[in-house]
Amino acid sequence: MNMGKKLYHGAAWYPELWGEEVLEVDIRLMKEAGINVIRIGEFAWSTMEPHEGEIDLDFFVRMIKRLYENGIETIMCTPTATPPIWYSHGHPDRMYVNEQLQTMGHGSRQHACTNHSSFREKAAVITEHIARAVGRLPGLIGWQLDNEFKAHVAECMCGTCLTLWHHWLEKRYGTIERLNDAWGTQIWSEYYHRFDQVPQPGPAPFLHNSSLKTMYQQFSMEKISEFADEQAAIIRMYSDAPITHNSSMAFSVDNERLFRGLDFASFDTYATTDHVPAFLINNDLFRSFKRGRDYWIMETSPSFAGSLESYAKPHPNGYLRAEAVAAYSLGAEAFCYWLWRQQRAGCEQPHGSVISAWGKPTVGYTNVLEVELAVRDIEAVILSTRPAQAEVALTYSDRAKVFLKTEPHRKLNHRGLMTDFYTRILNTGIHRDVVPEGSELGGYKLLFTPFLPYVSEEFIDRATEFVEDGGIWVIGPLTGGRTVEHTVHTDSALSKLERLAGVEAVFTYPMDGSGTIGHAFGHSATLSFWSSVFKPEGATVIGTIEGGLTPGLAFITEKAHGEGKIVMLGSMPTGDEGQHLLETLIQHYADEAGVTLRSHVTPGTIVAPRRGDGYELWIIVNMDGIGGSVTIPRAGVDVLSGEPIVLGSKLELGRYEYRVVRF
Amino acid sequence: MNMGKKLYHGAAWYPELWGEEVLEVDIRLMKEAGINVIRIGEFAWSTMEPHEGEIDLDFFVRMIKRLYENGIETIMCTPTATPPIWYSHGHPDRMYVNEQLQTMGHGSRQHACTNHSSFREKAAVITEHIARAVGRLPGLIGWQLDNEFKAHVAECMCGTCLTLWHHWLEKRYGTIERLNDAWGTQIWSEYYHRFDQVPQPGPAPFLHNSSLKTMYQQFSMEKISEFADEQAAIIRMYSDAPITHNSSMAFSVDNERLFRGLDFASFDTYATTDHVPAFLINNDLFRSFKRGRDYWIMETSPSFAGSLESYAKPHPNGYLRAEAVAAYSLGAEAFCYWLWRQQRAGCEQPHGSVISAWGKPTVGYTNVLEVELAVRDIEAVILSTRPAQAEVALTYSDRAKVFLKTEPHRKLNHRGLMTDFYTRILNTGIHRDVVPEGSELGGYKLLFTPFLPYVSEEFIDRATEFVEDGGIWVIGPLTGGRTVEHTVHTDSALSKLERLAGVEAVFTYPMDGSGTIGHAFGHSATLSFWSSVFKPEGATVIGTIEGGLTPGLAFITEKAHGEGKIVMLGSMPTGDEGQHLLETLIQHYADEAGVTLRSHVTPGTIVAPRRGDGYELWIIVNMDGIGGSVTIPRAGVDVLSGEPIVLGSKLELGRYEYRVVRF
Amino acid sequence: MNMGKKLYHGAAWYPELWGEEVLEVDIRLMKEAGINVIRIGEFAWSTMEPHEGEIDLDFFVRMIKRLYENGIETIMCTPTATPPIWYSHGHPDRMYVNEQLQTMGHGSRQHACTNHSSFREKAAVITEHIARAVGRLPGLIGWQLDNEFKAHVAECMCGTCLTLWHHWLEKRYGTIERLNDAWGTQIWSEYYHRFDQVPQPGPAPFLHNSSLKTMYQQFSMEKISEFADEQAAIIRMYSDAPITHNSSMAFSVDNERLFRGLDFASFDTYATTDHVPAFLINNDLFRSFKRGRDYWIMETSPSFAGSLESYAKPHPNGYLRAEAVAAYSLGAEAFCYWLWRQQRAGCEQPHGSVISAWGKPTVGYTNVLEVELAVRDIEAVILSTRPAQAEVALTYSDRAKVFLKTEPHRKLNHRGLMTDFYTRILNTGIHRDVVPEGSELGGYKLLFTPFLPYVSEEFIDRATEFVEDGGIWVIGPLTGGRTVEHTVHTDSALSKLERLAGVEAVFTYPMDGSGTIGHAFGHSATLSFWSSVFKPEGATVIGTIEGGLTPGLAFITEKAHGEGKIVMLGSMPTGDEGQHLLETLIQHYADEAGVTLRSHVTPGTIVAPRRGDGYELWIIVNMDGIGGSVTIPRAGVDVLSGEPIVLGSKLELGRYEYRVVRF
Repeated sequence: MNMGKKLYHGAAWYPELWGEEVLEVDIRLMKEAGINVIRIGEFAWSTMEPHEGEIDLDFFVRMIKRLYENGIETIMCTPTATPPIWYSHGHPDRMYVNEQLQTMGHGSRQHACTNHSSFREKAAVITEHIARAVGRLPGLIGWQLDNEFKAHVAECMCGTCLTLWHHWLEKRYGTIERLNDAWGTQIWSEYYHRFDQVPQPGPAPFLHNSSLKTMYQQFSMEKISEFADEQAAIIRMYSDAPITHNSSMAFSVDNERLFRGLDFASFDTYATTDHVPAFLINNDLFRSFKRGRDYWIMETSPSFAGSLESYAKPHPNGYLRAEAVAAYSLGAEAFCYWLWRQQRAGCEQPHGSVISAWGKPTVGYTNVLEVELAVRDIEAVILSTRPAQAEVALTYSDRAKVFLKTEPHRKLNHRGLMTDFYTRILNTGIHRDVVPEGSELGGYKLLFTPFLPYVSEEFIDRATEFVEDGGIWVIGPLTGGRTVEHTVHTDSALSKLERLAGVEAVFTYPMDGSGTIGHAFGHSATLSFWSSVFKPEGATVIGTIEGGLTPGLAFITEKAHGEGKIVMLGSMPTGDEGQHLLETLIQHYADEAGVTLRSHVTPGTIVAPRRGDGYELWIIVNMDGIGGSVTIPRAGVDVLSGEPIVLGSKLELGRYEYRVVRF
Repeated sequence: MNMGKKLYHGAAWYPELWGEEVLEVDIRLMKEAGINVIRIGEFAWSTMEPHEGEIDLDFFVRMIKRLYENGIETIMCTPTATPPIWYSHGHPDRMYVNEQLQTMGHGSRQHACTNHSSFREKAAVITEHIARAVGRLPGLIGWQLDNEFKAHVAECMCGTCLTLWHHWLEKRYGTIERLNDAWGTQIWSEYYHRFDQVPQPGPAPFLHNSSLKTMYQQFSMEKISEFADEQAAIIRMYSDAPITHNSSMAFSVDNERLFRGLDFASFDTYATTDHVPAFLINNDLFRSFKRGRDYWIMETSPSFAGSLESYAKPHPNGYLRAEAVAAYSLGAEAFCYWLWRQQRAGCEQPHGSVISAWGKPTVGYTNVLEVELAVRDIEAVILSTRPAQAEVALTYSDRAKVFLKTEPHRKLNHRGLMTDFYTRILNTGIHRDVVPEGSELGGYKLLFTPFLPYVSEEFIDRATEFVEDGGIWVIGPLTGGRTVEHTVHTDSALSKLERLAGVEAVFTYPMDGSGTIGHAFGHSATLSFWSSVFKPEGATVIGTIEGGLTPGLAFITEKAHGEGKIVMLGSMPTGDEGQHLLETLIQHYADEAGVTLRSHVTPGTIVAPRRGDGYELWIIVNMDGIGGSVTIPRAGVDVLSGEPIVLGSKLELGRYEYRVVRF
Repeated sequence: MNMGKKLYHGAAWYPELWGEEVLEVDIRLMKEAGINVIRIGEFAWSTMEPHEGEIDLDFFVRMIKRLYENGIETIMCTPTATPPIWYSHGHPDRMYVNEQLQTMGHGSRQHACTNHSSFREKAAVITEHIARAVGRLPGLIGWQLDNEFKAHVAECMCGTCLTLWHHWLEKRYGTIERLNDAWGTQIWSEYYHRFDQVPQPGPAPFLHNSSLKTMYQQFSMEKISEFADEQAAIIRMYSDAPITHNSSMAFSVDNERLFRGLDFASFDTYATTDHVPAFLINNDLFRSFKRGRDYWIMETSPSFAGSLESYAKPHPNGYLRAEAVAAYSLGAEAFCYWLWRQQRAGCEQPHGSVISAWGKPTVGYTNVLEVELAVRDIEAVILSTRPAQAEVALTYSDRAKVFLKTEPHRKLNHRGLMTDFYTRILNTGIHRDVVPEGSELGGYKLLFTPFLPYVSEEFIDRATEFVEDGGIWVIGPLTGGRTVEHTVHTDSALSKLERLAGVEAVFTYPMDGSGTIGHAFGHSATLSFWSSVFKPEGATVIGTIEGGLTPGLAFITEKAHGEGKIVMLGSMPTGDEGQHLLETLIQHYADEAGVTLRSHVTPGTIVAPRRGDGYELWIIVNMDGIGGSVTIPRAGVDVLSGEPIVLGSKLELGRYEYRVVRF
């Protein structure tokens, strides 16, 4: 992959499902549409290795060459999401077992347990063969491992996993007594004498121990990352092309851990226009998994997602280009469709594609052409600049996702909560990074850490250093109330955080329905969710509580620390007023932190700031199809038209329009 | 059965559940209520054969004789829906296994796998004994096989079925390579090397291949029809009485295939007054399974359906008679209740009946007496006429039901879709036949074929011939987009249909939520569902699209072909405006086709046209309990009163009233 | 337990989960909060017997002593709800199997089958050890068996239970033929030849026989009561302290049968302020399980219930005291919290407690202090009086709960129905007992028996005697239509009840949606539910039907019988008007019966009448937080202030206020 040399506009292609004649047509059509990268190999295990050990990759080698002859580069996939029938048939012990203890059958995806030694072995063999066969081909620019790890499945409950779970626990805890202490297993007589007695969290009359559920998920996430590491190591023996995985916030993986072992980040997204922030958050997050390295949108639909049992609202004409320009501007190197040619068989026949199963343009096709024109339009400015690091960061943690899956309170969903909080920032016009839990915080001025039940010592230290250096850290809601073992603290509600923030979390309790109102920043909103209410112990009260059970106490406090400030947000303001309160809070602390990477932009339109050699670039994109405007803070130039843009002028954007302004 | 010699008014009876004394009371009460046919034997296997091989049918012989002495004829049932405990106990391999791989226990109905060789064998033995014992009794006028095949169950997943499935596939495809090609199994590495590797569509992480799911359903439907054929063959060795099965649109059977092997059609219906068209469509459909042969309503409640876990709204007084008169007029020879005497035990104790468990009239009883009076009233005119073949036909296909079960798009339900479309025709006052996919089309002028994803070559040929002879064929929505294997076409969206209709289906995509408006026949309605949009290639545009993704293209086109016309309806107009658009379309093409078998009747009232020797007869029935009217198109006579009826007059009907007019 | 010597204010405590240091802190805090009784031992089996047979109870002995030294008495629990890992691991046959035939794993509660012989044996051993160790300790005042029997589970479907089920059936029916007759098993060929063929009501294509389902539930309820009896017998060998179980209307137990074998009644309740009657009904019911013996509230939250997956609305400040005063006034000897110290681990970490996991007051703490002040306030008047027996009784039956679980009609829920009916009485200001089916009726004037599908001969005799002595018995709705075997009667709809009530139940049918209006007592309401409609055969019509299927017939009748009266209520009046109709009916018959134990109190405020030596006491409590008033019928004295209260004055109560008036 020639990072920074071009923008990629790509699609997924399954040539093994079609005849030779179709392939030639496809390549011609790809060129017409401006597709310059193709992803192949995904799911093709049975084509590559029809019988166990009989591996023939000539077809794929030929495809990569043929594409390359036509100016199209290739991302090669490993096919491990779909082991062939020779792997499945007659081997129920190799299959994925769900929470209800049902053993999966052949014929869908992710039906095999990825932890079974046979799976690891067979996967290693096919991947090594592929890597050897295509790893040095000139057309090959990158690798994708498997497909959407843990998209359809979560934690496997098979016998293999039971054994590995016991080993994992032994490694983690050393002695069973340490596990018993950590999990508090004297409760309900759960107590274990040996690691091999610890069950998987399968069917039970009532809930399992929180520690058991959380650790089983972490075990599962670690195992799939370990599999990715194994696979990457094999590939690296034969290929220098960078490796990724097409992931998502929605899957049961720890993305930060996963991408640590890979070379670049990529994601799949099928958000509709009803959920534009759900599209944008991915860009701001996946940009941050491999800092300084562009990410890929590996899958998105040119028009709509669909399967036998569902379909999404198609994108309005024009939206696809807005999505693509936004993505490239926010740091994507590639914008790739799923899929090139509509499936003629299987369960995704109704899924949107670039070309129909009969080789004709689909309803999304003209939009793809528009994207291609935009790529030509913006490629130079994108390649000569880099995404600006934001000054505001929002902490993201897949471990928090695990904690909330174990403890959803009232059907809370981590992804939904995060996207809502992100939308609050988005609406203020402030540029933001969504940063993994383990990210360095250098360069940031304002950090939000909501919905992180467990905050590690290491994180606290890092964030404290950030504060000491002048940063403002806003903590909560739902942050810090749990230990690493998914238990509650026993020194105080929020333990070390309280001391740091100069508060006592006097009470913790669920506020929903209790008639509690929070006042702050000139707004009054109903408070909800499991909440902490504070008495200042050195902190200043910023938000006070009226009504409910704890009137007079605080739900927002702040305390100077070093050069910076620690802000506690103990509860969740809800409703329209709650949104306003949160947005005002964000703006207030952005002001205080001296955040400058922000704009007066109407909601529904975004500004993606980039930095060139001595200048700043704004790419402004209307995402809501209504149009909008942004106030220009300095004199600049419209890069595409060459026209000067006056300081203080209001730049108007039409429906899905984009503009590039250089300051 | 003396077809055409009398009208039957009947009930289901379970004498084996009651003492002798009750039986005599029952027979006396039946005579009082005018019941002249009784259905017995259903579910009575354990009474007939308490121990394996010990069969005694004297009781049932005696019942049939006793009934006959009292002027009551009998439909004899085979009891195969409920194998006795000696069949079930200790034989889990013989039991039905559901989609979740749960093995059914004894004690409900349809708990046995009907494909197990032991089941077929034991069923053959008991049926042969019954046929021999009662097959020539003078009171016996017909047979019912089993009860409501596949009402509670669908496709069995047991080991026996797995083996038979493999045989069925081998017979269908010959070689595994042909199956792989047909299903496109290289997708997701589903590819099989041998037929015995093909799984049943059981638990999987995500959806199964569409072809697999659709074929497994077809296999299951074929097997149950094969069982019916086997049973019928046994009975025919000992009895000349015609054979039926009490079926429904709601069950997992292919009714057209099933009735091909039987002698007359019958159905069960429990529609409430909230769903009158759901009652009527059955009559218009089941009349068409065995053309020229009257159908039976084998089960309906005199008042309400009920079980331990549910009950339906009871029929208002008067409605039962409207139902019965409508049924006889539309071609029913019999109108039978489930059940005669309320169950005293089991799970259907709360079900409506004619007589209570303590031998007293139920709340439905006076309605039954009203039916009996109406039977006497109309019997002569019914017997001296035949239902008029409609000029408008609506294609019905249980294969389409299968396709929609595999691919429900967004929880679409075939029966609901068909009933809604049927209601559009009903509301126009046009008489209609709902015709099975394989029906001859002679005599029709206008054919609607909506919701038929796969249209066979044979069907296209037959319909084309119909068009060439002057018919108008309206195709869609959701019609023609899938192949026989449940894949998409690869030549064009709708393949041959496009060429025939003179259109190119430029795009196919889901319109819901896309803001697409269709204009046609003076109406503008929101379009929805998975849609095809057309560019005329010889056709004329009738309905145009505004807004959405494809403004300016067509969703309705027509093209002359031979003497007739082919109309494409590519999308589903929704909302009130959509209903009006559809009804106007129906009337428009009915006008154009010269449909005369229609009337100006207010919605909620129906006209059932019949033909006598040189005259036409209308039986008009108010079904909505509000009353209505019909404009009399020619001079006629009120048959029941003898009064003349003037051309152009408006015949008024009161609540649930019926009238018989002879022209 | 020193009944009548003090009021208990208690909490559940799990000292085995905490270190020594915490224990001392806890005891100090308990004393500060006025906690004088502690419940321990629940779930602690693995602490008591870490390895099979190695039992050490010193810790618990020490705890009881330590508490006693601090003036705190103890309720000791058996830990049998949570068998240790040595019992579960490697023994799937010992585990609970649910209706879907899933075998439970270790790690939650109630995961073991309580009928397995190993369970009974191990439970006997641990209980005997506990009883021996602590049974005579001076601090020990009572016992609780297990915890919330059948709260998370219902009927086990394991192999052990299958065998015991067969024995139970054999004991109940003697011969299989008698079972077949009773259940009507010739239906659907369910017929059994041997008891060992009778299945458990597991997976089936459709519903099981009602008798099978009902009897399986009764078998299960009998078995758990038998287990309780066994356990109680062991304890009694070593201890004189009285024994209870913390039960609920919501669990799958027969409370009347269960408490017959125990010494006093207790219950757990977590009703929020949205469901105050759901709190109150427990008091009026559990007071009646052991007449003359005070009951305990063994568990209630100081603020809110919660688990990993849910939380309840917290109590508003002040409500807890209202709850406690109401409970003590209605006959509770103890008001105990779950739990003392918040769990630090496991699945109930978010549950409300008195003290947090870090030893600080929770949001409920000040409310607990308020309760303690109230206890001091009212203890003397409570101890010198006894709850007055009500004059109005409402029949409660867990057997009826079983019948409705088998036959829910339309998702009817016994507890919800009973609570709604109870609320109707509550709203009239009439004092009431909710009496178990088998209760003596002496002292009552008016008896309501709704929602009792099966009414035993013995009950009818007892109630008839009550009527003959001058009582008024109101029967229905949904009462009397089923036999002991859960079949319908075959002599008439309601059998003997009809003859007694002087009516013929002409029809029985579901009225919902049929447009039936009932007129009675000046109200007109829509009738619903499965209904019986009457023709008088000696009775007087009180409520007549208009519209629907049976206009002119009666839904309420009355007939003098002996000195009293039998009233039939055949249908359920619904909506606001239905509530008014029912409340007027209640008041009408209370007037007629000469009920004097009633008051003019505003809804939301209650009057708890008690009797002292020659005087009556009213404790009046505002429960709705709005405040209310009661008219004083006689001259009295405000006991707490000593002020006289004038006849006819209106005593006003503020938010959650209580008053004690002595007449």
